[in-house]
Amino acid sequence: MKAKIAPWIFTASCPSIIGTVDVVTRYMAEAGNYIDEIHSFDDRESGLFFIRIEFLPQHDDFSDAVFSEHFADRAAEFDMEWQLTAPNHSPKVAIMVSKYDHCLNDLLYRFRTGQLNIDVTVIISNHPDLEELAKWHGIPYYHLPITAETKLEQEAQVRALIEQYDTELVVLARYMQVLSPSMCEYLDGRAINIHHSLLPGFKGARPYHQAWEKGVKMVGATAHYVNNDLDEGPIISQGIQTVNHAHYAEDLIAKGQDIERVTLFNAVKCHVEKRVFLNGKRTVVFGG
Amino acid sequence: MKAKIAPWIFTASCPSIIGTVDVVTRYMAEAGNYIDEIHSFDDRESGLFFIRIEFLPQHDDFSDAVFSEHFADRAAEFDMEWQLTAPNHSPKVAIMVSKYDHCLNDLLYRFRTGQLNIDVTVIISNHPDLEELAKWHGIPYYHLPITAETKLEQEAQVRALIEQYDTELVVLARYMQVLSPSMCEYLDGRAINIHHSLLPGFKGARPYHQAWEKGVKMVGATAHYVNNDLDEGPIISQGIQTVNHAHYAEDLIAKGQDIERVTLFNAVKCHVEKRVFLNGKRTVVFGG
Amino acid sequence: MKAKIAPWIFTASCPSIIGTVDVVTRYMAEAGNYIDEIHSFDDRESGLFFIRIEFLPQHDDFSDAVFSEHFADRAAEFDMEWQLTAPNHSPKVAIMVSKYDHCLNDLLYRFRTGQLNIDVTVIISNHPDLEELAKWHGIPYYHLPITAETKLEQEAQVRALIEQYDTELVVLARYMQVLSPSMCEYLDGRAINIHHSLLPGFKGARPYHQAWEKGVKMVGATAHYVNNDLDEGPIISQGIQTVNHAHYAEDLIAKGQDIERVTLFNAVKCHVEKRVFLNGKRTVVFGG
Amino acid sequence: MKAKIAPWIFTASCPSIIGTVDVVTRYMAEAGNYIDEIHSFDDRESGLFFIRIEFLPQHDDFSDAVFSEHFADRAAEFDMEWQLTAPNHSPKVAIMVSKYDHCLNDLLYRFRTGQLNIDVTVIISNHPDLEELAKWHGIPYYHLPITAETKLEQEAQVRALIEQYDTELVVLARYMQVLSPSMCEYLDGRAINIHHSLLPGFKGARPYHQAWEKGVKMVGATAHYVNNDLDEGPIISQGIQTVNHAHYAEDLIAKGQDIERVTLFNAVKCHVEKRVFLNGKRTVVFGG
Repeated sequence: MKAKIAPWIFTASCPSIIGTVDVVTRYMAEAGNYIDEIHSFDDRESGLFFIRIEFLPQHDDFSDAVFSEHFADRAAEFDMEWQLTAPNHSPKVAIMVSKYDHCLNDLLYRFRTGQLNIDVTVIISNHPDLEELAKWHGIPYYHLPITAETKLEQEAQVRALIEQYDTELVVLARYMQVLSPSMCEYLDGRAINIHHSLLPGFKGARPYHQAWEKGVKMVGATAHYVNNDLDEGPIISQGIQTVNHAHYAEDLIAKGQDIERVTLFNAVKCHVEKRVFLNGKRTVVFGG
Repeated sequence: MKAKIAPWIFTASCPSIIGTVDVVTRYMAEAGNYIDEIHSFDDRESGLFFIRIEFLPQHDDFSDAVFSEHFADRAAEFDMEWQLTAPNHSPKVAIMVSKYDHCLNDLLYRFRTGQLNIDVTVIISNHPDLEELAKWHGIPYYHLPITAETKLEQEAQVRALIEQYDTELVVLARYMQVLSPSMCEYLDGRAINIHHSLLPGFKGARPYHQAWEKGVKMVGATAHYVNNDLDEGPIISQGIQTVNHAHYAEDLIAKGQDIERVTLFNAVKCHVEKRVFLNGKRTVVFGG
Repeated sequence: MKAKIAPWIFTASCPSIIGTVDVVTRYMAEAGNYIDEIHSFDDRESGLFFIRIEFLPQHDDFSDAVFSEHFADRAAEFDMEWQLTAPNHSPKVAIMVSKYDHCLNDLLYRFRTGQLNIDVTVIISNHPDLEELAKWHGIPYYHLPITAETKLEQEAQVRALIEQYDTELVVLARYMQVLSPSMCEYLDGRAINIHHSLLPGFKGARPYHQAWEKGVKMVGATAHYVNNDLDEGPIISQGIQTVNHAHYAEDLIAKGQDIERVTLFNAVKCHVEKRVFLNGKRTVVFGG
Repeated sequence: MKAKIAPWIFTASCPSIIGTVDVVTRYMAEAGNYIDEIHSFDDRESGLFFIRIEFLPQHDDFSDAVFSEHFADRAAEFDMEWQLTAPNHSPKVAIMVSKYDHCLNDLLYRFRTGQLNIDVTVIISNHPDLEELAKWHGIPYYHLPITAETKLEQEAQVRALIEQYDTELVVLARYMQVLSPSMCEYLDGRAINIHHSLLPGFKGARPYHQAWEKGVKMVGATAHYVNNDLDEGPIISQGIQTVNHAHYAEDLIAKGQDIERVTLFNAVKCHVEKRVFLNGKRTVVFGG
């Protein structure tokens, strides 16, 4: 079986008008970029066009800068926002946690083994508990406690760390704090949170207890972008697990952990592979 | 492979105290009833005990009456509510529908082919559309139109039909009317409804449109007993289907139909096989 | 919510070389065809390129003939096999069955309600059992009995019917006969069969009994194109169902029926929507 | 919500005759043992009876020894094999691995966090790679290289370690060596292996490559007891993952890892909780 050559990834979105595909694919052909895979989609409700292309440059002098120079004007005609991502680009990721370690452990495992193409540069927590796990992976761990009174101050420290580590993506891996509106705005579109329910069911606190009360036969998890509306950010992925009458709330919590970590992993993977596009309050996810 | 002999089914529930199992299993042994399968469960929150037994009488003179005569006093000591169901008992079922026929078609198919051990004796609708389908299966169809003004009157007609046909179970197979409180009370515990969402998410009208708005990645369906709290009756079964950005509300509706019909079938099958027990606002479902 | 306008569908495949996408998308732009959705994929093992496009012509004079006239030469340069499918095209389908009716009933239900865009023109069976079901749907039913001695003769009759009804797709909806090599060749690539196991596990006869013997915890179904290698045709879709120790072979058969019919439906839907491409002994299925 | 009191677990099997349930439940009632949950099942093909009971002793002087003294004679009458398991009993587990660490990492995570009630006392590998992971968890790691010539000798060393650590269960967590017949016999019924396919499909080597060749749309994993027939031991649990044409063998391997580790975890958990019974070449798994 042939080895895979990692492709460049081109992604773009703009208003839906005729020619949006052609402006991209024609340039690719002219520039000698071999297209391996395309997904495009026009959302007829939002009137927006989305495209993701994996391609292999055929010329040795290919560069991000040359692509930009040649393509920028063409894109501008279509009011197109676009992005080029280098093969195997590993974005710098900050992970925020509290005491639960199942999501952190999973992300670090996949980071360490190369299953997830990220560069975890810093772990930030409001508790000291998970420091040893971070240490074993050789990642700096910051313990920034928080109280109602110190919330804004702590968030300022968090921001400083996010800046300091040139963070491209923040992952809230069961960080059990409600973010302030200004923090939400700061993270808008570049932070992924895992919520332990199938949103919009069971928003807010203790969703597994809520689920037990209702006697549901399935529990789930939702990974979504952080925005300024708590538990209402655009959904990237969801997962479920069947349960039954013999599962008490503590069992739902345990069973849910497997779903949470897989759902969060899927969302982060799709994000890193540039498969996710914001589309108003919704997302487009290609080949997720 | 040996042929299956259909078993008698014994079900019971009572407060959890020591001896609840023994009073049943000892009687079974003494009476020469061979136990094929037991499920029992004590809910530590509600303090209730539930048991379901499949058994094969070994004596020719076994009868419901004899069982009752011998067992009733023992059960009374434990404040036990219990029920005996004959092998292959087919309860008389009334199905209520509106215009959507996917659930009705599925139930009738399974009724006709013996996959579902029910006796569909009457179909009641507020629309005339599905009469031909009923006719082909040789089942009486009553078209009882309804308006805001005639709701109570129509419901009285429905009740009369339910009585007339000695109905043991009513199935609301996408009957698109909000039942009055008195009708809910009348049907309490002996009617199963299918709701086209993963309750308690997307209660109320047009759940697939709500789901589309939220950009969920999964849609589902919930089969539950009717009680006096709309869309809050005890849940029997749930099913889900993954969806993506390319699915508009009309696609969710189409995709959801497969989940609705399978989920409703599962719930009715569990009910008919006496696997479902009410446990406050929740249910116990054995081997569902 | 805006109503969906049914798109034209363009599909093509050819050897992977640079420019395969551009030759298509450039023509689409020049011809004023608005592209709604693209999927393309290059298989690096087979060295083949596959593309599927949904588009909306913007000019009133669009026609299949004009498209062909203008595009054929360009396609020829790339050795491209391509096909244009009109909006809501309903291919003429012949369904072959024996005695089991669950798949037939499902396909006819979806045909009747418009969930599946097919035109079922004829039903052919080696048994008389399902004639009434066909009749209720107003579809001609041919009972062509078969024995080891009459197999080739019967298959000739089947072929004659397939021709007579201008059949575009044959669906073997639990047709319980092994086709002769010449019949397989005749149907190659234009017949879909449902096998009641997760192929290549449990090939051959009585797969549910085989599954029970092995004590598997999941049973499944496989929809595949017919080719000259029995139960080895290219797989289009698969489905599974969890089972447990309490399920005997007869239970697996019953549980499997739901999977079989959904799996067959998915495969037929994907085929009809031109989502499926042959890729050697494998398939490419876009957005299935 | 009330806290759970960990129950004693009673399990038994014997030939199916009348009274098998009664002999157990009557003793439980007489001895003042409160039954929390029962599962029983009679397999009509094998003619065997299986039962699992969770119970809470009501008397302070309850002990394993007293139970045995009183119950042994009654059990003997029914030729009953039975076992009593203390609350939260953590069996001593030896894990065998090669180079893949996803299953090991998962088991150690769940061991460390208490999700899996086991006591991992030793890790044995034919490669040195995973020593650091073992070390971090404070578990002795033995590197016992193996070649065709040294197989029996190495296996003797493995056995010695299994004995030395009083091992109750051996878990082959992607140990990539074919065991000798004598080793299989030695481990019969007390070792669980994870195979990376949905057995009996894709037995033997490189199952994901086989799966890719066949173009399947689902890959899976199977956890089974080791017996003397390679890849044919009684199945405990299976899991699946959908895949598509864009997944090459290397992608199937990556995707399969999540299924492998969850499937293996489920099997080990069921075994530890005494939910699994051998039933010829098959298993009975209660409430798995």
